Amino acid sequence: MIGTRTWAIPEGYIPEESTGPEPEMESHETLCVLNAGDEEATLEITVYFSDRDPVGPYEKTVPARRTSHFRFNDFDEPEPIPTGADFATVIESDVPVVCQHTRLDSRQAENALLSTMAYPGE
Amino acid sequence: MIGTRTWAIPEGYIPEESTGPEPEMESHETLCVLNAGDEEATLEITVYFSDRDPVGPYEKTVPARRTSHFRFNDFDEPEPIPTGADFATVIESDVPVVCQHTRLDSRQAENALLSTMAYPGE
Amino acid sequence: MIGTRTWAIPEGYIPEESTGPEPEMESHETLCVLNAGDEEATLEITVYFSDRDPVGPYEKTVPARRTSHFRFNDFDEPEPIPTGADFATVIESDVPVVCQHTRLDSRQAENALLSTMAYPGE
Amino acid sequence: MIGTRTWAIPEGYIPEESTGPEPEMESHETLCVLNAGDEEATLEITVYFSDRDPVGPYEKTVPARRTSHFRFNDFDEPEPIPTGADFATVIESDVPVVCQHTRLDSRQAENALLSTMAYPGE
Repeated sequence: MIGTRTWAIPEGYIPEESTGPEPEMESHETLCVLNAGDEEATLEITVYFSDRDPVGPYEKTVPARRTSHFRFNDFDEPEPIPTGADFATVIESDVPVVCQHTRLDSRQAENALLSTMAYPGE
Repeated sequence: MIGTRTWAIPEGYIPEESTGPEPEMESHETLCVLNAGDEEATLEITVYFSDRDPVGPYEKTVPARRTSHFRFNDFDEPEPIPTGADFATVIESDVPVVCQHTRLDSRQAENALLSTMAYPGE
Repeated sequence: MIGTRTWAIPEGYIPEESTGPEPEMESHETLCVLNAGDEEATLEITVYFSDRDPVGPYEKTVPARRTSHFRFNDFDEPEPIPTGADFATVIESDVPVVCQHTRLDSRQAENALLSTMAYPGE
Repeated sequence: MIGTRTWAIPEGYIPEESTGPEPEMESHETLCVLNAGDEEATLEITVYFSDRDPVGPYEKTVPARRTSHFRFNDFDEPEPIPTGADFATVIESDVPVVCQHTRLDSRQAENALLSTMAYPGE
């Protein structure tokens, strides 16, 4: 099945709410995961910072033959990801998945701003 | 010949028409396929969703030594891709091709907004 | 030396000049090539279209230990790349190089809009 | 540990300060590095130009289990990177890391504009 079990995204940043002129202008940092296989994927996501120990794992599941688009803004267990701070992410899955990192915002249809495939490990 | 037979794109989203201030501002989610080889490529595209079974295959062809840029907005067989919903895509080709995912909009020359190479399978 | 000899970029599009409100707003479709090695790289670039035979090779050189950022808008031999038409690119080099595809425009400092590493062949 | 020791980014460009209408609108060309391993990473970064010899190494460290987001605008030893000039980058690390290239600007929360994973060497 297409994909691999480990992925990394060095870039992450959730702007502080107050920097956007309107609440609906805040950015959404999104992890898009495709599980094209026939078994549910259990993800363990570790979040790395510049100046303190990593936090995690955040546990997520992606059902078989489904895609899930997770917003880092909504992560809350074991703790929310702080705004205004650089972070990075490692995703480990028990079955092969494909991960893409996209930042988009909800103001208008066309304002998704960046995207890259995550870096696949072995 | 450069390329491979399987590709995945975890991120996909066609905005609802009404979210753009003008019809010409709607985003176009595009799959760019290069077939640099000497045989026509037959593609089978499966579209994955967050909350229901995948749909497909959508069948497309790319002639030998040609590039085709497909808009997900125009997919209609077996059914259109719903707007306002997350999706993901797996492309399977009978000959090696190269796939890139680009979102662009038609308002101005310079407003293409994101692009990434698709993830290549074996 | 880092890199490989064959690269592909499925997505390419040079807007028609008239679509930009000002000449300086036209998009620039750029191929960024890094030759980190000790020998000059000779590139042969083939441009693929949706509805006619490929054109090329366009010949370019990148000196040893240099980077060259080529604008597709400026390609002229054997013929200019038409505006308003989808194209794709294959780059073949006689020594290893690294290729990245970026679209940027010259209106403001910050308005580069998309970028992705090209797809590496063997 | 996820990552590799050599990475390349063919595209780089720091706009001249004067091109932005306000100081806070200048672009930031950023190298995001994730060191998910248990040893500090020492990076040697070489910057390539179009018309002169490469400069470097710029030495940077990323602590164990940390991410560091470096702005090329802030590089100063052995010399600042000139504005208004194309450059490219090779990153060599003594332990495996993952590198991503992002251009963002500080005007608003949502205006990060391009990102791609760097090209991994062996």
